[in-house]
Amino acid sequence: MNKPSSVSASITVPKGFLAAGGTCGIKPSGKPDLALIVAEHPCSAAGVFTTNRMPGAPVVVSRRRVRSGRAMAIVCNSGVSNVCTGEAGIADARAMAQQVARRVGGAMRASDVLPASTGVIGRRLPMDRIISGIDALVPQLARGVEADQAAATAILTTDLRPKSAIRQMTLGGRAVCLAGIAKGSGMIAPNMATMLVFLTTDVACPPQLLRQLLKQVVGRTFNRISVDHDTSTSDMVLVLASGDAGNSMLSEGSAETACFAEALEGLCGDLAEQVITDGEGVTRVFEVEVIGAKHQADAEKVGHTVTGSPLVKTAIHGADPNWGRLVMAVGRSGASIKPERLGLSIAGIEVCRGGLPVDLDTPTRSRLEQAMRSDRVVLRLELGMGDATTRWLGCDLSREYIAINADYTT
Amino acid sequence: MNKPSSVSASITVPKGFLAAGGTCGIKPSGKPDLALIVAEHPCSAAGVFTTNRMPGAPVVVSRRRVRSGRAMAIVCNSGVSNVCTGEAGIADARAMAQQVARRVGGAMRASDVLPASTGVIGRRLPMDRIISGIDALVPQLARGVEADQAAATAILTTDLRPKSAIRQMTLGGRAVCLAGIAKGSGMIAPNMATMLVFLTTDVACPPQLLRQLLKQVVGRTFNRISVDHDTSTSDMVLVLASGDAGNSMLSEGSAETACFAEALEGLCGDLAEQVITDGEGVTRVFEVEVIGAKHQADAEKVGHTVTGSPLVKTAIHGADPNWGRLVMAVGRSGASIKPERLGLSIAGIEVCRGGLPVDLDTPTRSRLEQAMRSDRVVLRLELGMGDATTRWLGCDLSREYIAINADYTT
Repeated sequence: MNKPSSVSASITVPKGFLAAGGTCGIKPSGKPDLALIVAEHPCSAAGVFTTNRMPGAPVVVSRRRVRSGRAMAIVCNSGVSNVCTGEAGIADARAMAQQVARRVGGAMRASDVLPASTGVIGRRLPMDRIISGIDALVPQLARGVEADQAAATAILTTDLRPKSAIRQMTLGGRAVCLAGIAKGSGMIAPNMATMLVFLTTDVACPPQLLRQLLKQVVGRTFNRISVDHDTSTSDMVLVLASGDAGNSMLSEGSAETACFAEALEGLCGDLAEQVITDGEGVTRVFEVEVIGAKHQADAEKVGHTVTGSPLVKTAIHGADPNWGRLVMAVGRSGASIKPERLGLSIAGIEVCRGGLPVDLDTPTRSRLEQAMRSDRVVLRLELGMGDATTRWLGCDLSREYIAINADYTT
Repeated sequence: MNKPSSVSASITVPKGFLAAGGTCGIKPSGKPDLALIVAEHPCSAAGVFTTNRMPGAPVVVSRRRVRSGRAMAIVCNSGVSNVCTGEAGIADARAMAQQVARRVGGAMRASDVLPASTGVIGRRLPMDRIISGIDALVPQLARGVEADQAAATAILTTDLRPKSAIRQMTLGGRAVCLAGIAKGSGMIAPNMATMLVFLTTDVACPPQLLRQLLKQVVGRTFNRISVDHDTSTSDMVLVLASGDAGNSMLSEGSAETACFAEALEGLCGDLAEQVITDGEGVTRVFEVEVIGAKHQADAEKVGHTVTGSPLVKTAIHGADPNWGRLVMAVGRSGASIKPERLGLSIAGIEVCRGGLPVDLDTPTRSRLEQAMRSDRVVLRLELGMGDATTRWLGCDLSREYIAINADYTT
C-alpha cells in the first residue's frame, strides 16, 4: 500500500478547519460520544454512503445535503445509530445539525451541517443530551493534535484504537494537505454499527470533481476490505475541501488532480488498513491479490468471496496452509475461471499451479508454515483469464470475534 | 417441515437396492471410508451438482453420466475429495466406478456407476486401497438396517451423526418407498469438503421427470440451508429409481407425481434439517421465514443473507434479541424493501413493525429472552412488498466452529 509522508496530527492540519470531541452521556460507559468538525467558511463537499437499503436517518439526511456540493460541518455521535427510527429519527438528525449551525453562527446554515451517528439500532437519540453536548462542544472547537484526537476518539464504538491519517503534497507550488479520521471494527459491533470516515482538505476543488475522485477511491480502498461481510446501515465517507491551500482550482484530467487523487487513495488505503487491523477479534490480516481475471468485476468477486469466506478466515487464524479452501472460494465466487489455469501462492510460495498441487519439499513447507504465523499473509491468486487485477484486505475469524458479538448481550 | 411416517432403516428398504460400507484405509483415523449402493437392474437416475466452478473429478464424471438418465450404482469414498487433481483425478474417478462394475458384473456397465468423493482437496486418491476396498465390499452388499447404517457411516467426515430418512406412500394402489442418506457438517470441514445425498426409491418414474422433481425439491430444501455460506467443490444429490414398486410410470402433472414430489420434498427437508443440526459447532438452529417479498428471488436473497450473516449467527449464539442485526441483513440482501413496511418477529413476539421498534413490556421481554435460549428459534421477516415467501434454516456461529476449522491444521 502506497504510504507517503505522514505526520501525527490530522483533520485540523488542512487550513480552514477546527475540531472538538467530548462526552455528552449517550454511552453508559461514559466514554466520549460526540464529535464536531467545523470549517471556517463554506467548503466543497462530497460523500459516499452505505448501499444498505435500511439506511439510518443521518445517512438519509447527509446524503441529500451533500448533493448540493456545499457543506461546513460534520456532527457525529456514537452510542446510538438513529436507524429504524422513522420520521422522528429524521427530525432528530436535522435538529442535531441545526443546533450546530445555531451555536457556530456566521455563514453556517443548518443545511451546511452533515449529521452522522453510530451505535445501537432501533433507539431514538437522547436529544436533550446531544443538544447540551453540542452547546458545550462548540466553544471547545480548536486546531491541533488534542482537538484531532478528541474528535477521532469520540466517534469510536468497539474500536480499540482511534484511526487517523494525513498526506501532504505540493500542487502548482502550493502546499496542500489532506487528512482524515475513521471508525470501524466490525461492520456491526455489539449493538453498534458502522464505518465512518471524515476527511478534510484545504485543496481547492469543485464539488463534482471531488465527488468523482472520492467515489473512485472508496471503490479501491474501503470497498476492498471485509471484517465480516456485514454492511452497516450507517456507513458514510465524507470529505470537506476548504480551498484554503490557494492552489488553482483542480480540473478533471490535470496533473495536479492526478497527484491529489493519488494522495487521496493513499490516505483512504491507510485508514482502510487501520480499520481492518482493528477489526473485531483480529489476530492476523491477509492480503488477497487477484491477478489475470477476465474482467474487473470478476477480480472483485474473487477478492470479496475469499476475504469473506469463514473457512479461509479460520484457516488464516489457524495458520493452516490449507489452500483447498482458497480453491473452493475462488470456485464459488461466480468469476469466470478454468480450473487448469488456476495458480495460488501463499506468502510468495507457490502451492498450486495449473489447477494442480505443487509438491513442496520439507524446508519449503516449514517456510510456508512459518510465514503463515506472521501478522500479515499475502495470498496471490492467478486466474489466467485476462488482465484485470485487484487487491483486497481481510482478517482472520477468531473466538474473540464470537465473544465480542455473542457474549455481551444487549 | 412436513414429516410423513418414517421408519428406522433407509436406502435398502425401497425394492431393488443393496448397500455396504466399510474401511479401506484412506482416513488416518481408521474410520469407515468407502460406501456402495447397488441396484439389481438399471434405474432411472437424476442428480443435482455443486455450482462451484472448481468441481471435483467425481462431480465432473457423475454429472456427465447421469445425463443419460440411467444408472445402477453409487460408489463413494470419504477422506480425500479428488478435487484439483486434473486429468489423473478424472481417470481415478472412472477407475473406481469401473472396478465396481467389474466386481458386480451382470447388466452393470462402468458408465452405470456414479462416483462420489469427500475429503481433503488437492490430493490423489489412494487407488490401490480403493480398488481392494471395492473388492472386499462387493461381497458384503446386503439389505437391512446394518447395511444402511454401514453405508451412511462410511460417507461421513466431521459429521457427528449419520443421517438417513425414509418415506412411504401408496401410488395407484402400490406401496412406494423413498429413502436417503446424507453427509455434511460444514460446507467444508477441516480439509474435508462436501454435502452428499444419495436417494433410492422403487418408484417407476422416467428419468426426465425424476430430474425435474429433484431439481425443484433441492431448490426448496438443501439450497435453503447454510452452515457457513461456503459452497463445496464436491456437493451432489443423486437419486436412483428402480421402478420395482410396480406403480404405473409417473407422468408430469398427475396426482401420483404430486404425491411422490411431496414425499421427496419431505424426505429432503428432513435430511437438510439433519445436516444443519449436525453443522460444525452448532448449538442452536434458527428458521428464517420470509413473508411478503416482491419476487421469489427477493425472498431467497433475504433468507440467504440472514442465515449467512456472522452478526445474526453470533446474536443467535448469544441468545441476544438484537434485531438491529436482522434489519442490517435484510437491508444488505439486495431485495427490494421499504423501511417503513418492515416487520420482524422473534419466536412469535413482534419486535419491529412498520420499520419502528415495538415497545416490549418486561414480561414480554423476558419471554423473548427465554425463547431465544431454546434449541430452535423462529425469525419471521415481513417485507410487505408482495406475495413471495420462503423458509431457510441457519445455525449459530460458535467458538467450536473456530476450533474445528482453525485449530486442527493439516
